[in-house]
Amino acid sequence: MLTMVEMNVRIPLDFDKEEAERLKASEKERFQELQRAGKWRHIWRVAGHYANVSIFDVVSNAELHDVLTSLPLYPFMEMKVTPLCRHPSSIHNDDR
Amino acid sequence: MLTMVEMNVRIPLDFDKEEAERLKASEKERFQELQRAGKWRHIWRVAGHYANVSIFDVVSNAELHDVLTSLPLYPFMEMKVTPLCRHPSSIHNDDR
Amino acid sequence: MLTMVEMNVRIPLDFDKEEAERLKASEKERFQELQRAGKWRHIWRVAGHYANVSIFDVVSNAELHDVLTSLPLYPFMEMKVTPLCRHPSSIHNDDR
Amino acid sequence: MLTMVEMNVRIPLDFDKEEAERLKASEKERFQELQRAGKWRHIWRVAGHYANVSIFDVVSNAELHDVLTSLPLYPFMEMKVTPLCRHPSSIHNDDR
Amino acid sequence: MLTMVEMNVRIPLDFDKEEAERLKASEKERFQELQRAGKWRHIWRVAGHYANVSIFDVVSNAELHDVLTSLPLYPFMEMKVTPLCRHPSSIHNDDR
Amino acid sequence: MLTMVEMNVRIPLDFDKEEAERLKASEKERFQELQRAGKWRHIWRVAGHYANVSIFDVVSNAELHDVLTSLPLYPFMEMKVTPLCRHPSSIHNDDR
Amino acid sequence: MLTMVEMNVRIPLDFDKEEAERLKASEKERFQELQRAGKWRHIWRVAGHYANVSIFDVVSNAELHDVLTSLPLYPFMEMKVTPLCRHPSSIHNDDR
Amino acid sequence: MLTMVEMNVRIPLDFDKEEAERLKASEKERFQELQRAGKWRHIWRVAGHYANVSIFDVVSNAELHDVLTSLPLYPFMEMKVTPLCRHPSSIHNDDR
Amino acid sequence: MLTMVEMNVRIPLDFDKEEAERLKASEKERFQELQRAGKWRHIWRVAGHYANVSIFDVVSNAELHDVLTSLPLYPFMEMKVTPLCRHPSSIHNDDR
Amino acid sequence: MLTMVEMNVRIPLDFDKEEAERLKASEKERFQELQRAGKWRHIWRVAGHYANVSIFDVVSNAELHDVLTSLPLYPFMEMKVTPLCRHPSSIHNDDR
Repeated sequence: MLTMVEMNVRIPLDFDKEEAERLKASEKERFQELQRAGKWRHIWRVAGHYANVSIFDVVSNAELHDVLTSLPLYPFMEMKVTPLCRHPSSIHNDDR
Repeated sequence: MLTMVEMNVRIPLDFDKEEAERLKASEKERFQELQRAGKWRHIWRVAGHYANVSIFDVVSNAELHDVLTSLPLYPFMEMKVTPLCRHPSSIHNDDR
Repeated sequence: MLTMVEMNVRIPLDFDKEEAERLKASEKERFQELQRAGKWRHIWRVAGHYANVSIFDVVSNAELHDVLTSLPLYPFMEMKVTPLCRHPSSIHNDDR
Repeated sequence: MLTMVEMNVRIPLDFDKEEAERLKASEKERFQELQRAGKWRHIWRVAGHYANVSIFDVVSNAELHDVLTSLPLYPFMEMKVTPLCRHPSSIHNDDR
Repeated sequence: MLTMVEMNVRIPLDFDKEEAERLKASEKERFQELQRAGKWRHIWRVAGHYANVSIFDVVSNAELHDVLTSLPLYPFMEMKVTPLCRHPSSIHNDDR
Repeated sequence: MLTMVEMNVRIPLDFDKEEAERLKASEKERFQELQRAGKWRHIWRVAGHYANVSIFDVVSNAELHDVLTSLPLYPFMEMKVTPLCRHPSSIHNDDR
Repeated sequence: MLTMVEMNVRIPLDFDKEEAERLKASEKERFQELQRAGKWRHIWRVAGHYANVSIFDVVSNAELHDVLTSLPLYPFMEMKVTPLCRHPSSIHNDDR
Repeated sequence: MLTMVEMNVRIPLDFDKEEAERLKASEKERFQELQRAGKWRHIWRVAGHYANVSIFDVVSNAELHDVLTSLPLYPFMEMKVTPLCRHPSSIHNDDR
Repeated sequence: MLTMVEMNVRIPLDFDKEEAERLKASEKERFQELQRAGKWRHIWRVAGHYANVSIFDVVSNAELHDVLTSLPLYPFMEMKVTPLCRHPSSIHNDDR
Repeated sequence: MLTMVEMNVRIPLDFDKEEAERLKASEKERFQELQRAGKWRHIWRVAGHYANVSIFDVVSNAELHDVLTSLPLYPFMEMKVTPLCRHPSSIHNDDR
């Protein structure tokens, strides 16, 4: 089941730089683990912003909630969640 | 070059039903042509709405403009255009 | 899987009264069918408005989309869709 | 008398962690007390957010105000209050 | 139980003038009936607008809904409903 | 001359508790003084919020400005000011 | 007593041209009458819009309401009303 | 050339009181200098707010920018700038 | 003196096609006349929209108003006007 | 390929003045480098604001993202990105 999540990351200007780097490295690791598992299907940068557009493929809203709230940068993110479904006209099987 | 386009279709309640069907068929045909050409990379329905989230892969803003404004349902659509770029953490080559 | 849908019904002032009544009767019938099937778990009127707050229990976003877009009054509705999940503190089993 | 309350919890990033845990435990306790008393009829998590959608069953706006403002996490919450009433089409007696 | 209702009246420019006058006369009659019954406690014009701020005193949200939706001008009104309660500092008994 | 003022009070989470209590006590005293003088005609709590809806009866905008900006909690308030006038249909003399 | 009123005029595209001209001439006449009487103190065009910023000098909100709602173009106007008062720093007596 | 500027002053609650008084005195002095020079044509308080509506008469946008950004309270102000021009119906020569 | 104007063109779906073409041709002619005169310094399409971003170079707000309101498509345009001035860092003389 | 970027700079009131000056000098240097290279085609001040409207000429969204996020003042900027393309009516070759 597909869901679009738009994430804006807002780390305060005076946040500890080293801690921020640790969190970003940890976020990247967790992201790639989820991407390899097929749960985080797509991710793109929004040009000019510290933000991304992501497509998740999960079995339920509950799984989506667990995945999102366990992200290392979650406390710094504003999220917009949009439930999607396969478009009847698509010829691609993996736009499920 | 990737761009997200969110399209809302608003056909007036009193619009001619047959003409609407002709336009939708023609839209589907044009969409699949663009999808086969690799220009309309992804499309998903927004659950509960006559709307979609789409990812385009075009060489320039000018090509994007030509593709969008030539859609048969274009006069009925509200569009939001968001320029994207590859995310540095992605492990998928085709999230370019 | 639970989803909240907030529906606003906007029938144009000059819409045919009899046709509106037919659509409302048909909407009520379809609603009760879905309520009996357990898919439309809750519905409440928003005080002072021709609007409701509803809780759906469906297996996927795709099922939600099919249920909503097949409602007789769908073309007159503005919808806001909010994915929900069970709250960890709830003591009620059916707030799943 | 039913009312929907949408609650967003915003605890500052630098708020004392232990104090936050104490407040959350105390919030959960108070919530379950109100749920058992039948006043807090339903609660659901909003997927991806530290937020909930709740349905209260109280005798008056005054009781609602007292219940909400006495919550341990109240100072950290943004609330949206929507008065509801029974929907005439509902076949469930407890959607009163 | 008190509720504030802000009403904006929007009668289309081309609506039949005589019918509009009939509806306004009927609205005024119904309003005064409700005012005499103590249910429509206060009403004020918003300066410069065809709009009012009103305070209702009803036993429940359901009664409020019935009162509002039965107004002759209801189909032309946009409403904003705000649940109120007595302010603890007030020295007036009728600001209940 | 009547004016509606909607006041939201936002005292920072880390503001000194004792100072806040002194300001609230002082605010209540000033409020009751103005209410007795007939200038602060009505006040109601907005259910679920640290906010009120108030009706002022002053001779001019200048008097309104002086009354509002001299409130002890004024620096913590967000205000929305709406000029009102007597509604022609009202049967109450004091809804002037 | 001063009030700023921002007026946007929206005459429908298909409105009768002659009737529009009659209304505009009548609006101008009424405006100049009010300007000569000192009630409509200032008026300026908003560059690029069929809109104006106006300063009224009236004895009460009620007089303002009567002046505004009796304008020939009133049914086509969107208005924003902002109560003003003399600024303590002004050295001009007529910025009262 | 006329321009309306709406200024909201937001001095942080914990800003040094003496420094704030110095800035306000300095702001008033600079304001009156500009008012005497005819550049700051009008100023009015917005009732209930630490805000003003002002009309500037400058030779260009560049002069407006220099005047505004050199105000002592500029770093604390939110500004909305609206270009105006003489209204063709005005009978006052100085509403130029 | 530079001003940015963002123009959205909204021609109703049922507007006469031939008349629309005549207006567009006439708009193009007027635009190029103004561009040659140096008053309409720049124009760009907004990708995906029937809209443009334009930079005007005029002597006053009054001239800007006359230029904009005399455009053949003006009645179908929504405009946003932003006063600009030369940026102190620019090395281009014509970004005046 | 052209893109409009609107930048608002918000440096906190208590940010170190010297560090701010260093960042601004460094921003100016980087800006002029990009302007000389033809990538930052135009820049204008927004009158009355610490903000600019800029036109970039880059080969892709990715290049735009790299250019913007590497600006010394980037962490203090709010950005709005609008993809543009050549307008078919323009007679200037460099409005490409």
